[in-house]
Amino acid sequence: MSGPLNDRGAVEAANARFYRAFEALDPEAMDAVWMHDEHVKCVHPGWPLLTGWEAVRESWHAIFANTEEMRFTLSDVRVDARRDLAWVTCTENILSEQGGRVGVTAILATNLFARVDDAWLLVHHHASHVLTRPSDS
Amino acid sequence: MSGPLNDRGAVEAANARFYRAFEALDPEAMDAVWMHDEHVKCVHPGWPLLTGWEAVRESWHAIFANTEEMRFTLSDVRVDARRDLAWVTCTENILSEQGGRVGVTAILATNLFARVDDAWLLVHHHASHVLTRPSDS
Repeated sequence: MSGPLNDRGAVEAANARFYRAFEALDPEAMDAVWMHDEHVKCVHPGWPLLTGWEAVRESWHAIFANTEEMRFTLSDVRVDARRDLAWVTCTENILSEQGGRVGVTAILATNLFARVDDAWLLVHHHASHVLTRPSDS
Repeated sequence: MSGPLNDRGAVEAANARFYRAFEALDPEAMDAVWMHDEHVKCVHPGWPLLTGWEAVRESWHAIFANTEEMRFTLSDVRVDARRDLAWVTCTENILSEQGGRVGVTAILATNLFARVDDAWLLVHHHASHVLTRPSDS
């Protein structure tokens, strides 16, 4: 980790809010996590890039509408913070149920947060499946 | 795009240098693109997270040693620059030959650059396969 300790704590809290909103399948909580800007971007696992808040917002609402239950355990959370921009990497260990099928999946995420006044808002989310494990070290 | 025009141009040039080093399979050129720091991170498509310059450097050298030819066309290059940190998203359209087999693959990449004096150095690369295309818009 690098950057001032209090910034890193605030960024980690913003990251946790994002995953709580995801887990709650709560569109309003998810709306509150993101910067509502035409420059924000989002890559769901395997999806092409979504650009702009409207497209990103729509994707979350669609995912929430099609998911019955979502449970996360985060691991390997690493935070780096600069003055007005911070990034987090973490592994999303997801237990989900869709159409009666329960699955556990490891997803690697890069989350970028920008500071706006005293808040850290999500501006970029890139999530992808871990397909191979050449090293578990 | 957002951020000062000259910063965006410098970041886009740094991003292009990264892909030229990749295409040239040139370890020294790749070394020159990255910040040599324990905090840098890299996610190759489907791989788990690599942390620290030594692990990242080793992965590129291994990839180069096992790749006969690599040709890129970049599309959808988008640059956002803040004061000392910038991020680029782009699609890597890759024509590669490994073990006599030629393939074309679309990879989505998030590249984070940090400004050090007048240089923009790569501190994070997250690349993942585009598996589905729910929308081509």
